[in-house]
Amino acid sequence: MNIVLNGPVAQAGAAILRERFGPATEIMEVDHRAADDRTISAFAAAEILVSVDFDASLPPTPQLRLVHVPATGLDALDLAAVPDGCRVCNVFEHEIGISEYVMAAILHHVVDLAGKSARFKAGSWVDSPRVLAPFRPELAGKAVGLIGYGHIGRAIASRAKAFGMRVMALARTRREVDPRPDWLGEPAQLPALLAASDFVVVACPLNEATRGVIGPAELAKMRPEAVLINVARGPIVDEDALYQALSTRTIRGAVLDTWYRYPGPGDPDVPPSRHPFHDLDNVVMTPHCSGWTEGLMERRFAVIADNIERLRDGRALLNQVHPPGG
Amino acid sequence: MNIVLNGPVAQAGAAILRERFGPATEIMEVDHRAADDRTISAFAAAEILVSVDFDASLPPTPQLRLVHVPATGLDALDLAAVPDGCRVCNVFEHEIGISEYVMAAILHHVVDLAGKSARFKAGSWVDSPRVLAPFRPELAGKAVGLIGYGHIGRAIASRAKAFGMRVMALARTRREVDPRPDWLGEPAQLPALLAASDFVVVACPLNEATRGVIGPAELAKMRPEAVLINVARGPIVDEDALYQALSTRTIRGAVLDTWYRYPGPGDPDVPPSRHPFHDLDNVVMTPHCSGWTEGLMERRFAVIADNIERLRDGRALLNQVHPPGG
Repeated sequence: MNIVLNGPVAQAGAAILRERFGPATEIMEVDHRAADDRTISAFAAAEILVSVDFDASLPPTPQLRLVHVPATGLDALDLAAVPDGCRVCNVFEHEIGISEYVMAAILHHVVDLAGKSARFKAGSWVDSPRVLAPFRPELAGKAVGLIGYGHIGRAIASRAKAFGMRVMALARTRREVDPRPDWLGEPAQLPALLAASDFVVVACPLNEATRGVIGPAELAKMRPEAVLINVARGPIVDEDALYQALSTRTIRGAVLDTWYRYPGPGDPDVPPSRHPFHDLDNVVMTPHCSGWTEGLMERRFAVIADNIERLRDGRALLNQVHPPGG
Repeated sequence: MNIVLNGPVAQAGAAILRERFGPATEIMEVDHRAADDRTISAFAAAEILVSVDFDASLPPTPQLRLVHVPATGLDALDLAAVPDGCRVCNVFEHEIGISEYVMAAILHHVVDLAGKSARFKAGSWVDSPRVLAPFRPELAGKAVGLIGYGHIGRAIASRAKAFGMRVMALARTRREVDPRPDWLGEPAQLPALLAASDFVVVACPLNEATRGVIGPAELAKMRPEAVLINVARGPIVDEDALYQALSTRTIRGAVLDTWYRYPGPGDPDVPPSRHPFHDLDNVVMTPHCSGWTEGLMERRFAVIADNIERLRDGRALLNQVHPPGG
């Protein structure tokens, strides 16, 4: 089995795969953006390609049997460019980290530990009950609206329920889900979810049905005191409309982990949007790292290694997304 | 029934009690620190005194039938000064707010949303997986050690379990408790809990058995990467030893909501400790407000009003702490 790891996220699992398969298995680390002879010949020999990106601009891969995305989102992968008979799988395992991030984001807005600590460190008892400080809200009883109820949505739901939150969720199919949300709608019921949620969490894939699905009209339906949290993909939320809603405080704030622009070799410091979200004090922003946790790579590359063995042994693969039903 | 509300925390419930009992019931708002004629005559007539403080320095209360502490801790109350036959009750209801605060404090240390947002707002992608940023820890699998397993400890435990944390707890009595901790010890097993916990939460009453129970030896038993969270009472943790451990980084950090000094009328800006905790960047500090939430007073004064009615009707009181078994 000839294994090629393309790009930094795939390369991050090199040690785990080498440990699992031993020195007899060739594991090459490349980056398709280099496009040098070594990279081209690695692609030419690859039977298994671990890569976030896959499209027609990559060097030819005539031996390819499996593209394993070492992430969940397939939006950097062009299925039309995948050779006939080649399978495509993805991995999850980030729902632990992302749900912890989302609960941290929600609790930040409810408890305001940072703001209170800054004021107290500056010598003021202004937040003390002794001076009858205003009460802060309680998370218990607040509603979280989950746009998407897959691995991430369900991990958030189980944590939110422990806080006594009301869980609302949108899912494409009304299958049995665990945990059961307090309210479960279909995508057409997005306006009802937006109008009832204190925290709206974008946790669905980016595809043609979801691109820009949160636009000006949807942001206007949110409660003025509500907070938008995007841990899925930037363009699910309309970039201009989001900046407008935040800068004019149509909504209270946002916690944004996913973006409209990402750094490339030629532009390592590209701003994440054409708008200055970083100037807004009601925005918390992070560089797509909500699921980037210590346990992630061990779990993800354990799945990838399992799938490599399954392919070798002719068994069914885990998380196969292409060919459908294949 | 003549009701006197003494001090700002008791006065915060005035509207709730007036709404409940109507204009026929006299409800006086005083502050014993004023000690003027109005205050003295209010105490003289009081049948029910709602007050955090009670000791021999207060004006005489010959009519007193019930001291209702509008908080949980009884450390500002001298039982020896309570008139014979007078009952004492307290209230809880803060476990929702305090457990939310504790989970916010724990997630702050795990996710570091504030630090990552500050770096990204300054233009750096340093925390991005695209540049192979270091992984952050996961909360899942970490251990929280609860010193005290009453209302607060159990509310923290149910939330921590939803994150896949290991819950360790110390309790005076090994009664059946819900939720069941993964490890339940008695007070003598404090060293074992300290050595195994990533987050140590002080959540027990202050009394002669617990004053200074976390001293230099106990802090030295904590893991170097562990964080101490005190939402109970400052003096349960030795003031000098805590400052020493934090300033020399014997432990990673602390989140402190309860203190060694509090503002009084003559000193509204008193620093909360004789040590400059506010200068330490590994300390998050708040002015005893972890449970100060919108739902708190409604719930607490509903219990107090119930107890006033129970006293009037000769029924058993809720949360009666004195006389024991009375």
